[in-house]
Amino acid sequence: MPRRPKKGKDLGKIRIIPLGGLGEIGKNMTVIEYENDMIVVDCGLGFPDEDMPGIDLVIPDFSYLESNLDKLRGVFLTHGHEDHIGAVPYLLRSLNTPIYGTPLTLGIIKNKLEEHILPHKPSLRPVNAGDRVKVGSIEVEFIHVNHSIADACALAIRTPLGTLVHTGDFKLDTSPIDGGMMDIVRLGQLGQEGVLMLMCESTNAERAGHTPSERKVGASLEYIFSTHPKKRIIIATFSSNVHRVQQIIDTSARHGRKVAITGRSMINIVSAATELGYMKVPAGVLIDLNEIKRYKPGEITLITTGSQGEPMSALYRMAFSDHSQVSLDANDLVVLSASAIPGNEKLVGRIINELSKNDVEVLHDAVVEVHVSGHACQEELKLMQALTKPKYFMPVHGEARHLMANRDLARYMGMDSKDIFLSEIGKVLEIDESGARFAGTVPAGKVLVDGYGVGDVGNIVLRDRRHLAQDGLIVVVATVDLDERMILSGPDIVSRGFVYVREAEELMEEARQVAYDALLDVLDYGDHADRMRLKKRVKEDLTQYLYSKTKRKPMILPVIMNV
Amino acid sequence: MPRRPKKGKDLGKIRIIPLGGLGEIGKNMTVIEYENDMIVVDCGLGFPDEDMPGIDLVIPDFSYLESNLDKLRGVFLTHGHEDHIGAVPYLLRSLNTPIYGTPLTLGIIKNKLEEHILPHKPSLRPVNAGDRVKVGSIEVEFIHVNHSIADACALAIRTPLGTLVHTGDFKLDTSPIDGGMMDIVRLGQLGQEGVLMLMCESTNAERAGHTPSERKVGASLEYIFSTHPKKRIIIATFSSNVHRVQQIIDTSARHGRKVAITGRSMINIVSAATELGYMKVPAGVLIDLNEIKRYKPGEITLITTGSQGEPMSALYRMAFSDHSQVSLDANDLVVLSASAIPGNEKLVGRIINELSKNDVEVLHDAVVEVHVSGHACQEELKLMQALTKPKYFMPVHGEARHLMANRDLARYMGMDSKDIFLSEIGKVLEIDESGARFAGTVPAGKVLVDGYGVGDVGNIVLRDRRHLAQDGLIVVVATVDLDERMILSGPDIVSRGFVYVREAEELMEEARQVAYDALLDVLDYGDHADRMRLKKRVKEDLTQYLYSKTKRKPMILPVIMNV
Repeated sequence: MPRRPKKGKDLGKIRIIPLGGLGEIGKNMTVIEYENDMIVVDCGLGFPDEDMPGIDLVIPDFSYLESNLDKLRGVFLTHGHEDHIGAVPYLLRSLNTPIYGTPLTLGIIKNKLEEHILPHKPSLRPVNAGDRVKVGSIEVEFIHVNHSIADACALAIRTPLGTLVHTGDFKLDTSPIDGGMMDIVRLGQLGQEGVLMLMCESTNAERAGHTPSERKVGASLEYIFSTHPKKRIIIATFSSNVHRVQQIIDTSARHGRKVAITGRSMINIVSAATELGYMKVPAGVLIDLNEIKRYKPGEITLITTGSQGEPMSALYRMAFSDHSQVSLDANDLVVLSASAIPGNEKLVGRIINELSKNDVEVLHDAVVEVHVSGHACQEELKLMQALTKPKYFMPVHGEARHLMANRDLARYMGMDSKDIFLSEIGKVLEIDESGARFAGTVPAGKVLVDGYGVGDVGNIVLRDRRHLAQDGLIVVVATVDLDERMILSGPDIVSRGFVYVREAEELMEEARQVAYDALLDVLDYGDHADRMRLKKRVKEDLTQYLYSKTKRKPMILPVIMNV
Repeated sequence: MPRRPKKGKDLGKIRIIPLGGLGEIGKNMTVIEYENDMIVVDCGLGFPDEDMPGIDLVIPDFSYLESNLDKLRGVFLTHGHEDHIGAVPYLLRSLNTPIYGTPLTLGIIKNKLEEHILPHKPSLRPVNAGDRVKVGSIEVEFIHVNHSIADACALAIRTPLGTLVHTGDFKLDTSPIDGGMMDIVRLGQLGQEGVLMLMCESTNAERAGHTPSERKVGASLEYIFSTHPKKRIIIATFSSNVHRVQQIIDTSARHGRKVAITGRSMINIVSAATELGYMKVPAGVLIDLNEIKRYKPGEITLITTGSQGEPMSALYRMAFSDHSQVSLDANDLVVLSASAIPGNEKLVGRIINELSKNDVEVLHDAVVEVHVSGHACQEELKLMQALTKPKYFMPVHGEARHLMANRDLARYMGMDSKDIFLSEIGKVLEIDESGARFAGTVPAGKVLVDGYGVGDVGNIVLRDRRHLAQDGLIVVVATVDLDERMILSGPDIVSRGFVYVREAEELMEEARQVAYDALLDVLDYGDHADRMRLKKRVKEDLTQYLYSKTKRKPMILPVIMNV
């Protein structure tokens, strides 16, 4: 990138470049540069939209980092959720840079890295809330916040030009389960010292009021356990919500229940969190899933994955009688301690229906308050503004609607519209002594992961997949002799995903005739009867014929062989 | 169906057979038989699930009706929503039977029938709430209920054995916009006379309390219009919600605004409802969409389709700057006077995001009460039980979870579990003097409509479409001479939706080599080198090779031509 000549008192220039998480939910990643030093805040993954069939994951485009390796000083992770750390393994495949994060965050990453083959040993550097890390001319301070995972932090990023605050994901919980309230004192001190720029998450910016405390869920659990003493209780929640799991275990222990854990990620996180001291399990409460049969239903709690209705999760398998150790019936109560992430409503509904059919009682967040959000609502977002009193503001983490709502809150708090920057991924915001302004773009976008392939499925492949899904496929194969202008074999027609061929023999036979006529016509009368012309004509004629008969447009693949 | 010998006092036998709407949302349809007379309540369509790519609509399987034509006395429609009337045109394609409904319901049907070519002139027979229709030994009485469309009715179905009540969709609105409160007096009288069976809708059976009155929306509209005097107001709602549209028009008139209508179905229904007297438009309020430019933003209300985010709707086109007459900006307020139907959340979100990007203010039901449900919540469902005091109960209209919740309400009201029948589509419930019991099944299911095709896409085609969407397709074509055991041409490989071929040349070349080796191997060493064996081997070897390289399993279509 060409550099403009420096202006002002020569305190240098900051560049802020979101590579993900703006205009979308997920794959949060922001590049922050001060002169010749560059750091990255978070490196998350996203999940595919419904118009990306077959795609497993979406990660940010790393090419800007790859071409600025000499400046890169490290990745700073705010917390251990997939949308903030999930792309780290993919980043480490192509470059080696230190990864800073709190112990739980790095513990989760270590687990993930075991599934990847890396060209080098990753450099994971644990820090704690309150720590400061100096990399080149940039200093990063980790500040404790509340969130739906333990050990979450905001970052204060100090440069000679001024201090940036990046909130990560946060909420204010005045009665948290563990780890203390968000460090609003430190945030307020930063505000008093002067904050040049606030980057604040926007997930719940449309929601009025305060997000309830995690402790609310504890009260609901207590009520549920008290009113269902005879039933086995199965609770599905996010495995990373260590405090939620802690509350379930504590409530179970109080009610004399043993607790068994099921689901791979749940087992992993519970063991990691217990090892690192984020979770305290009373002695004798945890039992193996194999042992549950020794107890009566009222003596057992199961904690499971699958709160989003994921088809391979433990809860899904239990619901659809496909779990080797647990089957559910009228003696069971299932609690969905989560809310459906947008797009997952139907999957969650499918589980609820299947459980209902088997007379399993189901409680979800529409009925009892068994879930609270991990994200700040409007009053907390306003508090963040009031504490940090930033000169400039950039809403981050959210779709356009959320970013706009967060902007409106900043305006309400008295910020001038010209000091609020609604950015996009790849868009460069430059700050120097003379002010802040957008200044060009860098490569950014969605890189699709499909199986082992990273980036080998793009728009053309997706377009074809959608076309194939919509109306299916017709393959027309013929062998011709172009010199003699003869059809040697075929045309044969093979279809998939179009109509059920055995019940549409007439249609398929007519289609074959249309293809035959098209080939003959080109061979007999065409000036240049090459394969390209033969294919084009077959495709055109068949498309038209099939649309007139069925109002569908299957993909037509003519394969003409010349012998 | 074989008949059992009659029991008891020989008052005959009733059979109740749901053909749709149980265990699913949509395509509501119930067959009711008394001896040699058969009627059908509703004939609705459903929308495809996400695992039915390319499908336009889902309709019930009519084969049971087609094979009992001699008994069929008519279709009785409760109201004019798609999920109750949408399959009528498809039914009338294959059989001719009278269609009974209130004037608005039939008005909407007439509109739909114009798009279909029928083998006979349909017999549409208008009735009004309070009317009774006698067909054979069955008498059907239409009873006024409140719902999110005007002219909705419950049905009392009288037979010599007893009276069945089918609620259709309903809510209790003590302050409706027009047409009066649900006729609870008549329902109570029926209860006093004795109701043998209640079939009651279950949509909101999980929701506590009462559904608010439609008038609530009027209050919200009044507030919105008062606080946005300078903005043009664009309101998207369901076109069939005649009373909602009436309220929008009335509020606009009160605030001195002209109203323009956009969206084909909105224009159709407003004109039909006005003609039939269900809507009263003050003189001079309605203007043509072309005229809106003559007015200031604060003088205009637009009523539009697209409240579900439908990609071709007027609102969608306005949001994405693709509407020829309306473009939206910071002078506009968009009100989404609807809630997203499950599965549509992301589509609606897409519109909100696009509007936000263009600085258009958006109000939706999470922010202001601009929508109320048309379905009874728990207190209203209990009232229905209390009024009709049925001997037997069958929850209808809902997924398993809703049917179960409605069953639980009936139990709470004191019904014995043995008198509650949780049925399924195709399941026959028999009632005679000696009691009620399930007695076998009839054909029932989902018939898929794709373009002109009705029922020609089934499970195999859908499975192929999903496979193609997931990992794409590889076509392998070769011409061989089986007698000489030679490859004459190929193998050629064509792929779609698999990888971007230009960036995967090596992979595709290796795949070709795998196919070549497979063919040669069979031709050289196989005992019987027929086309089947060649195809099988190519498919196996390529599947294995590609999975080892990409962890994907594209559909592999070998086409082997023998010359």
